[in-house]
Amino acid sequence: MHSEKIPFSMARLDDLLDDFGIDVLIVTSKHNIQYLLGGYYHFQFDFMEAIGISRYLPIFVYVKGALDKSAYIANRNERDSIQNRTSAGYWMPTVVFGSSTSVEAMTLALEHVKSAATSALNVGAEMSFLPADAADVLRSELPNCRLVEAMRPLEKLRSIKTAAELEILREASERVVASMMDAVSRTRPGQSKRKIIDHLRQAELSRDMIFEYALVTIGTNLNRAPSEQRLEPGDIVSLDSGGNYRGYIGDLCRMAVHGAPDEELVDLLAEVDLIQQAARAPIRAGLTGSDIYAAAAEALARSPHGKQMHFVAHGMGIVSHEAPRLTASGPIPYPADDASVPLEAGMVISIETTLPHARRGFIKLEDTIAVTPDGYQAFGDGSRGWSRISG
Amino acid sequence: MHSEKIPFSMARLDDLLDDFGIDVLIVTSKHNIQYLLGGYYHFQFDFMEAIGISRYLPIFVYVKGALDKSAYIANRNERDSIQNRTSAGYWMPTVVFGSSTSVEAMTLALEHVKSAATSALNVGAEMSFLPADAADVLRSELPNCRLVEAMRPLEKLRSIKTAAELEILREASERVVASMMDAVSRTRPGQSKRKIIDHLRQAELSRDMIFEYALVTIGTNLNRAPSEQRLEPGDIVSLDSGGNYRGYIGDLCRMAVHGAPDEELVDLLAEVDLIQQAARAPIRAGLTGSDIYAAAAEALARSPHGKQMHFVAHGMGIVSHEAPRLTASGPIPYPADDASVPLEAGMVISIETTLPHARRGFIKLEDTIAVTPDGYQAFGDGSRGWSRISG
Repeated sequence: MHSEKIPFSMARLDDLLDDFGIDVLIVTSKHNIQYLLGGYYHFQFDFMEAIGISRYLPIFVYVKGALDKSAYIANRNERDSIQNRTSAGYWMPTVVFGSSTSVEAMTLALEHVKSAATSALNVGAEMSFLPADAADVLRSELPNCRLVEAMRPLEKLRSIKTAAELEILREASERVVASMMDAVSRTRPGQSKRKIIDHLRQAELSRDMIFEYALVTIGTNLNRAPSEQRLEPGDIVSLDSGGNYRGYIGDLCRMAVHGAPDEELVDLLAEVDLIQQAARAPIRAGLTGSDIYAAAAEALARSPHGKQMHFVAHGMGIVSHEAPRLTASGPIPYPADDASVPLEAGMVISIETTLPHARRGFIKLEDTIAVTPDGYQAFGDGSRGWSRISG
Repeated sequence: MHSEKIPFSMARLDDLLDDFGIDVLIVTSKHNIQYLLGGYYHFQFDFMEAIGISRYLPIFVYVKGALDKSAYIANRNERDSIQNRTSAGYWMPTVVFGSSTSVEAMTLALEHVKSAATSALNVGAEMSFLPADAADVLRSELPNCRLVEAMRPLEKLRSIKTAAELEILREASERVVASMMDAVSRTRPGQSKRKIIDHLRQAELSRDMIFEYALVTIGTNLNRAPSEQRLEPGDIVSLDSGGNYRGYIGDLCRMAVHGAPDEELVDLLAEVDLIQQAARAPIRAGLTGSDIYAAAAEALARSPHGKQMHFVAHGMGIVSHEAPRLTASGPIPYPADDASVPLEAGMVISIETTLPHARRGFIKLEDTIAVTPDGYQAFGDGSRGWSRISG
């Protein structure tokens, strides 16, 4: 049995809603539903959301400062799932059952909002996760409301992880790295990239993870998508995988080589590692993302291959590349809104250094760093050298 | 190598677009993207779509009658994936790279539409799979267009399966049933429902399927969601699972019992089976869904427990409960638009009979029936009696 505990900080959420001028939140994204309901997501639509003539659309309505006025709008076939969740002692707001379509779900949500609040509201919604037909209902049913983009306050809420979340992220990271070592031990020359990815998938699945993706290179080819390319003797392999453990992402990159790495490969990976170590060294609460980038830039400037390398540091957790957002020039573009804001304890940063070497191949390390009051913890920090592929 | 073949019938699609008054299709749902691109979906966002400040939003633009004006709007990080697909010989329309957000993707799609057609268009879109922010771009960039709901023509397009699709659905069905038998063989008294579901998940994963969900009951409890409920000696178990094989759903229900079924259980399952057999018996191209329901209703009227049973027949394929839509009173509600329209060869129907017996528990069979010109084929039709749980 679990205690009936609200899984997020109401005080922090209410402050953020004040900052962004939001009275009522209408949450429709899978990741934020899952976060605000403490890990709950209806099992039947975990992978596909299409059903019948519409889609599964769970909605969490949060009325600022009034948890008793909040509600969860559930699918009409979700009763058993909710009943098992609440009878196991987990917190759940008032549940409204009955929706089968996105329009029905939003109609029920707005009936609840109208009964709980005035109609002249600032309504926070996630515009890229709000279906157009549900948005039309929202605009017609609450004609006096002002729609406010709620992505940012929600990612800020999620950016400070609790001890329980950090523990899950540590597990996720360790399990991804252990899965990579499993995959390496099963890899042999002649196997295709698809086969290697399959080793990794099976290894993650056997560790109770959901395999999300693997970006893999073989040899000197810099293409990271699945293919029939085969591992030749002496080839290097980079394994960059996202594995989902209880809703949180373990996302790391490790290197392997068939046989033994030659001196140049050892030096190149050490060079990548030097940037990684330089970037993490100063991390603690109070430091800014710009400081991380400054430390990396200094190390890159001293590095023989610094000009060819790509460095990126980004927040992570439920979503890959979430707040804190530390750069405006990474592979996933967004404004660097948090670059000069002090990091807080409980934030989790992914640090990546990539050397796409024209002659030797794709050499990369990615690590997961949790910010603590006076330093950092690296999750899943093993196996950072060349792992050996035999056979 | 695969031949450069368009994976859908252009003639049929163009006819459907004429019927629904659509000039240009803007496809944004995962299932229809995958269908129209012949199984392609970017591997990195197969499970989660959130990334950075928005989401992954692939868009397929289809200009009626002009395949050369069609385009696929891809994420900026999707190049490797597309390159491997096309170099393996698969068809792909013109690809526009560059989007990172739903707004960017729609902006690129509309630039393409404007260059390929007039601005006074009837635009077909899937309103429950079109993000609100992308819809806002659509309405402001094409102010003279009329938005038409495209769910229906697309599900009608998908409702006639090719020989290749039928083969995948047969495999999906057989693999789900084989996985259930695996799960039964690993189930023992004392194990929780979660554990039994885990057996099934592992069994489906080991058969190259994506485990979507399992609705499972134990003993006389009619709750079908995962829980810690434990299997007691003599308990019955119903296993209803959706397993995804190469994008298509195997969705069947089979029964098991610890030890041996008593006479009453044997009779009850035979009674359920009788309804199932009666419903499938008349199926062939030209029959209507109403005829299936009439045959079932007649059998239900003669059945001792007919009044307690629930019967449903629904189309299936990429989406669970897709066209043909044969009833307006099923567990997933929608208008019965196809109930009196002749079935066509290549349609696939799921047939389900459920007896939620207050004293003996949840007794159900679900089968997958493919319509042929002069009859039907049942996919994964084995193990329809009581399977035995030992230990």
